[in-house]
Amino acid sequence: MQKKFIALAIAGVLAAPVAASADTANVTVYGKAHMSIDHVDTGNSMWDVRSRASRLGFKGTEDLGDGLKAVYQMEFGVEMADRNNDINDGDRGSLSQRNTFIGLAGDWGTFVVGRHDTPFKISTGKLDLFGDEAADYNDTLGFIDARADNAVAYISPSMSGLTLAAAMVPAGTSTVFGGANANADGLAEAISVAAMYGNGPLYAALAYETYDQDVITSTSATPDLDMWRFGIGYSMDAFKVGFVYENEDVGADFDIYQLSAAYKFGNNVVKGMYGETDGNALGTIGKGDSWGIGLDHHFSKRTKVYAQYVEIDPDAAGVSNTDTFSVGMVHSF
Amino acid sequence: MQKKFIALAIAGVLAAPVAASADTANVTVYGKAHMSIDHVDTGNSMWDVRSRASRLGFKGTEDLGDGLKAVYQMEFGVEMADRNNDINDGDRGSLSQRNTFIGLAGDWGTFVVGRHDTPFKISTGKLDLFGDEAADYNDTLGFIDARADNAVAYISPSMSGLTLAAAMVPAGTSTVFGGANANADGLAEAISVAAMYGNGPLYAALAYETYDQDVITSTSATPDLDMWRFGIGYSMDAFKVGFVYENEDVGADFDIYQLSAAYKFGNNVVKGMYGETDGNALGTIGKGDSWGIGLDHHFSKRTKVYAQYVEIDPDAAGVSNTDTFSVGMVHSF
Amino acid sequence: MQKKFIALAIAGVLAAPVAASADTANVTVYGKAHMSIDHVDTGNSMWDVRSRASRLGFKGTEDLGDGLKAVYQMEFGVEMADRNNDINDGDRGSLSQRNTFIGLAGDWGTFVVGRHDTPFKISTGKLDLFGDEAADYNDTLGFIDARADNAVAYISPSMSGLTLAAAMVPAGTSTVFGGANANADGLAEAISVAAMYGNGPLYAALAYETYDQDVITSTSATPDLDMWRFGIGYSMDAFKVGFVYENEDVGADFDIYQLSAAYKFGNNVVKGMYGETDGNALGTIGKGDSWGIGLDHHFSKRTKVYAQYVEIDPDAAGVSNTDTFSVGMVHSF
Repeated sequence: MQKKFIALAIAGVLAAPVAASADTANVTVYGKAHMSIDHVDTGNSMWDVRSRASRLGFKGTEDLGDGLKAVYQMEFGVEMADRNNDINDGDRGSLSQRNTFIGLAGDWGTFVVGRHDTPFKISTGKLDLFGDEAADYNDTLGFIDARADNAVAYISPSMSGLTLAAAMVPAGTSTVFGGANANADGLAEAISVAAMYGNGPLYAALAYETYDQDVITSTSATPDLDMWRFGIGYSMDAFKVGFVYENEDVGADFDIYQLSAAYKFGNNVVKGMYGETDGNALGTIGKGDSWGIGLDHHFSKRTKVYAQYVEIDPDAAGVSNTDTFSVGMVHSF
Repeated sequence: MQKKFIALAIAGVLAAPVAASADTANVTVYGKAHMSIDHVDTGNSMWDVRSRASRLGFKGTEDLGDGLKAVYQMEFGVEMADRNNDINDGDRGSLSQRNTFIGLAGDWGTFVVGRHDTPFKISTGKLDLFGDEAADYNDTLGFIDARADNAVAYISPSMSGLTLAAAMVPAGTSTVFGGANANADGLAEAISVAAMYGNGPLYAALAYETYDQDVITSTSATPDLDMWRFGIGYSMDAFKVGFVYENEDVGADFDIYQLSAAYKFGNNVVKGMYGETDGNALGTIGKGDSWGIGLDHHFSKRTKVYAQYVEIDPDAAGVSNTDTFSVGMVHSF
Repeated sequence: MQKKFIALAIAGVLAAPVAASADTANVTVYGKAHMSIDHVDTGNSMWDVRSRASRLGFKGTEDLGDGLKAVYQMEFGVEMADRNNDINDGDRGSLSQRNTFIGLAGDWGTFVVGRHDTPFKISTGKLDLFGDEAADYNDTLGFIDARADNAVAYISPSMSGLTLAAAMVPAGTSTVFGGANANADGLAEAISVAAMYGNGPLYAALAYETYDQDVITSTSATPDLDMWRFGIGYSMDAFKVGFVYENEDVGADFDIYQLSAAYKFGNNVVKGMYGETDGNALGTIGKGDSWGIGLDHHFSKRTKVYAQYVEIDPDAAGVSNTDTFSVGMVHSF
């Protein structure tokens, strides 16, 4: 029992608050540093230094016996560059939160509560060959990926290659996706489900995500946001190809697709992507298309450098292309 | 000596800034993940996911010889849920500060400077059987616990079961307890003292805390806030009982008490509490009473799950009860 | 290759997101806790508790073969005291960013991208015997030291005692030095270079730093800020002396110098400094002089305590001196 009426070793409270934590082996410290130097041309051009989803995390598991494990993770986004125009404040508050949860795992799967990428996001994440880079499919084509606050999530073990995942968000007083949610009081204001199948060279995924509109706009007059996504990938020796399609229905209807391919030689990978978009339900991107090409050099499993070029070409008249040339380095630890 | 005029290995400055820190064993990484899924009924009802004093910390000691030790700790609150209604900002700035200090320890006790729970708070903390949970005695009955910024604190070793603790706060330009403190310039604008006695099944504590009103309201026209608290606990085999009483005098006078009991069977604990309050000096709670009952299941020393029900019943006419059903998990690492 | 089309062990994604990070040895956790209790007299007097550049960091290197290494660091400033007058918010967002970068190192030197002290700042940092303490030469005399956001930096290996360092800042949408930078679009909006020579008892440094005025003021009508700095130090047995001179030209011209000396006996160091300033280009300090004297006691290589007295004496009529007596403790981990 954690609470005892026996004498408190208060000096111990000061100097070593949690006795059980004396064993640092309970914690794995990990992370990823990813920065790039970009030349961005949107009519005007500029040079910029960017931090791309750099992160620092703390995680662990405890064996509870009978095949049961406790799992936890606290992961923070580290903005290694300064993107705002505030006064030189050392970027106070520049740590954001990433997947941060507690849960239980067993033969039956994993159950977690906290902030986590939705199953919808996870389903095709590995098919984005430019993830977190300048040509990331969220930034170029407007695929909508969410890391849900206050998620209650379950993911199955692999069953002959098939993995199922589901998450719901009891909105409470919190915000799921931007915007207020005064009308949201249910246990599952947002739902995300995914089926993923991997077998040898093949990977395929189907996912669905829906948000009660209250969560997004705080009004109930507008329709819910419903999204579904399909992805498939196939690898042949050093070559692989992928395709992802997404439909978003929020009254207005949006279609997005991306084709991608990669070829590996030695420690290098050359990769490319092309896609078209109707824009998306969040309005973060307009109708148009985008293509990118890149070369990765892997120094090791943990460290790579890359160069890539990406164009975003809006269909709208009078809107400039955004052309980005990006040289970057990624190190996982 | 740390400063030398000999050549700086500047490349070393870049790649390995503090040579003395190469030995990671200087740091223990520890923490606690605590989340619950709550159904809250205040007339309207809602489901919510809550992070309850989840934390991540870094601490260590260094043996300085002659029985002297250096001690330090940096502990951060991690808001694992999203409680605000801001746009989906990944909760930037969601790390708060908890007990964070540097000091010296020896046979004579421990002396620290920094942010720390006051002796007043520490004195009966272990008597709150629902600490950090939905039925926490601060949230339900309005006991006032402070983590003082800028504290200068001393705690004695255990002397035949008796431990003494004292802290003062030189307010400087800082805030102790909320509110501005333009009139605060002394070395001890707030003082907190506690005597704690533990012997076999008995635990008893007496504590006093006072704030110069300047610290709280920035005016000297109102009286100081004086609080004293008494707590006692007794355990018999698997059964234990506790009682805490607090008086707050801020011109107006407030009394609060809580009775609690727990019974352990196997890896489970059933526990309950009842208390009454006149409200408190901070106005965070009104006159009324509260009761709670809970069941804890301990998977291990580090991991438990629980379910509990708690009512807060204000005396005021027309004010709804707050009824909360909470299912949670706590993992210390 | 990091991206694969084979089945994702998604449960693994949840419970252990980065397989490569399972080995905690990739990360060194380090830091410094530094707090002082100060009596400050500026006409009125007050007692205060201050955190002085306390920090917590995570860093590591990976051997990439062929003499090449990947290096990274994420270092955060930890405000262990509460300096603002906000409500008692637990100082949310109180983590700031310090040197945080990724890069490559080899026989040819070290190349990093990120947030880093400029070569100009590094050049004479070791000559400030009161660095981060009450008598720090930035706070007392107005030497301008910058930690550049978005720096691209190179530092050579030591060549017979000579080390060269250079950094540039592609301003992009970011801020270098306070103020907006709407007009800044070049690859090197700020430049900092330093030559440092160390040989036995002698250390000497020469440095230059320039900011395109767009970066500072967002107008191009005012001149750039140009600074150069010279420093020299010499040690004889237990005695050492130092001198630093800085010139700042921003249309108006500012000169600053500081003399310092230290004497070591046993585990103690007595140290003093005197300097004069015309003020500085940022207006953070006015024309005047300053002196300080201090006694350090080193408990170990990692832990010291100190007492010091420092006066800042403005030349302006009717402006009070600032007299500070500071007792502090520093612990590196």
